[in-house]
Amino acid sequence: MSLLVVGTVAFDAIETPFGKTDKIVGGAATYISLAASFHTKDIGLVSVVGGDFPKEKIAFLNSKGIDTSGLEIKEDEKSFFWSGKYHNDMNTRDTLATELNVLLDFDPKVPNDQTAPDFLMLGNLDPDLQAKVLDQMTKRPKLIAMDTMNFWMDMKLDQLKKNIARIDVLTINDEEARQLSGEYSLVKAAKLILSWGPKYLIIKKGEHGALLFDKENNVFFAPALPLEEVFDPTGAGDSFAGGFIGYLAATKDISFDNLKRAVIIGSAMASFTVEKFGTQRLEAISPQEVDQRLQAFNNLVQVDIALAH
Amino acid sequence: MSLLVVGTVAFDAIETPFGKTDKIVGGAATYISLAASFHTKDIGLVSVVGGDFPKEKIAFLNSKGIDTSGLEIKEDEKSFFWSGKYHNDMNTRDTLATELNVLLDFDPKVPNDQTAPDFLMLGNLDPDLQAKVLDQMTKRPKLIAMDTMNFWMDMKLDQLKKNIARIDVLTINDEEARQLSGEYSLVKAAKLILSWGPKYLIIKKGEHGALLFDKENNVFFAPALPLEEVFDPTGAGDSFAGGFIGYLAATKDISFDNLKRAVIIGSAMASFTVEKFGTQRLEAISPQEVDQRLQAFNNLVQVDIALAH
Repeated sequence: MSLLVVGTVAFDAIETPFGKTDKIVGGAATYISLAASFHTKDIGLVSVVGGDFPKEKIAFLNSKGIDTSGLEIKEDEKSFFWSGKYHNDMNTRDTLATELNVLLDFDPKVPNDQTAPDFLMLGNLDPDLQAKVLDQMTKRPKLIAMDTMNFWMDMKLDQLKKNIARIDVLTINDEEARQLSGEYSLVKAAKLILSWGPKYLIIKKGEHGALLFDKENNVFFAPALPLEEVFDPTGAGDSFAGGFIGYLAATKDISFDNLKRAVIIGSAMASFTVEKFGTQRLEAISPQEVDQRLQAFNNLVQVDIALAH
Repeated sequence: MSLLVVGTVAFDAIETPFGKTDKIVGGAATYISLAASFHTKDIGLVSVVGGDFPKEKIAFLNSKGIDTSGLEIKEDEKSFFWSGKYHNDMNTRDTLATELNVLLDFDPKVPNDQTAPDFLMLGNLDPDLQAKVLDQMTKRPKLIAMDTMNFWMDMKLDQLKKNIARIDVLTINDEEARQLSGEYSLVKAAKLILSWGPKYLIIKKGEHGALLFDKENNVFFAPALPLEEVFDPTGAGDSFAGGFIGYLAATKDISFDNLKRAVIIGSAMASFTVEKFGTQRLEAISPQEVDQRLQAFNNLVQVDIALAH
């Protein structure tokens, strides 16, 4: 298995200044695996849904090269449901409802033929469950990336820190980096968090781009493409993570230079996701569109600067 | 004259989480001309101060190649004074005091030998005064850049818009771009503002970098260097403007490619200013330090991304 993805597969109901949706398919692992599937086809998905989850959506994931034998279906229960409303700035949101449902007693089981993936992406999930997945690995993956959120820093910081010590790349946003480290400066926050074990830290700054730090004080910055319209930011961070890990899994190169490329690919995938509600846009990207967007990234930062003296 | 700079020369008293100052020398035109003087020496400064302004500071400006014959000294009055306190995030601040003093009846007079500069930088100032300076130009400068702030959008929007139609480059921050255009999307804001006349718009995003837009939908993004510590953000935007216009004046090249370089130079100058209180750091930069910082900018965004398909 090239890439194993663990996280939520769920329903979302989203309201933005541009409109609102009924229940649509969402969840961290959905966005991650779809974004990754653009780059690599040998993907395993470990998650749980209820009997209400549309079978045709599962078939669609399969058609994208995503093996769902690790997607537990609890026919008599309901899928995880989240509902939120974005403010006018699209950067802040209110959670209107969180129904854990099948997540309440979720016990992730990695299928026997998926316990030795080359790459592992732990999407945002209860740190205890992320640890259970790590424990089931029969071979250390080439690279383990993990996402989390402020909620788990409040609720399960000890377990979260234990996980951080076992992984290679942590992806969090700027606010979370500040909360986790107690440092306002992102440079200082990165130094502290990297001292806990991981080789790399990615700080996602939404419309302000993303920073990649390593232990040798190297920093790489990927801007977000300036977009005319951000329609629905839901899943942007997960699409970023999926593009990032999917590109690494496809190229099997975990040098810093290739991680930089993966960050740009991740940013490109996120820039598509925000253009429509839910996974709609992510499901219909053409290779030409990705190339156009990578070209736009190149143009955005390309400058020929000679040293002055 | 290579570059004419107009704006305030003033006293500031600043409080940050790292400490506080008594009255120190500040003002938009001070930061702009000092940052520009690193790149070009033939600079004229038009402003006004009171008798309380230290003569040795004026001599220091002169020593940097800044001609202060346009700096009016009203011996019986007091210099403009601003006092502010930054919050812990260093991005927001409270104004504690604003004493206009000499600014109250300031009537800018450009010396006869400075009315035909190659480059003109109108620092943040009452739009009526900026217009008076424009009216005194006997030859259209190669490039006119202008800075302003939200206060003037509230108070003198009509005159501000008239000025915008007469200049080449407007520099404002993201919040101001949104206020001025009524558009949340910076891409849409840029399109609208550029439709009013100027060739270029620079949107300064502080720790999130700066965007340069032209009328042909070209966008260039310069990141801010991730710094361990921002000690005092006062003057960062003005140092950016000074580095930008100073570099253009030195190279005399106003192509989009050179404007991109000028934006990077401006970002570098701003990254020095925030390291110490006031103009302290700006006054003591070595060419080697600037080169190191430009190298750091290169490293920060340098990526070799091949198109995927």
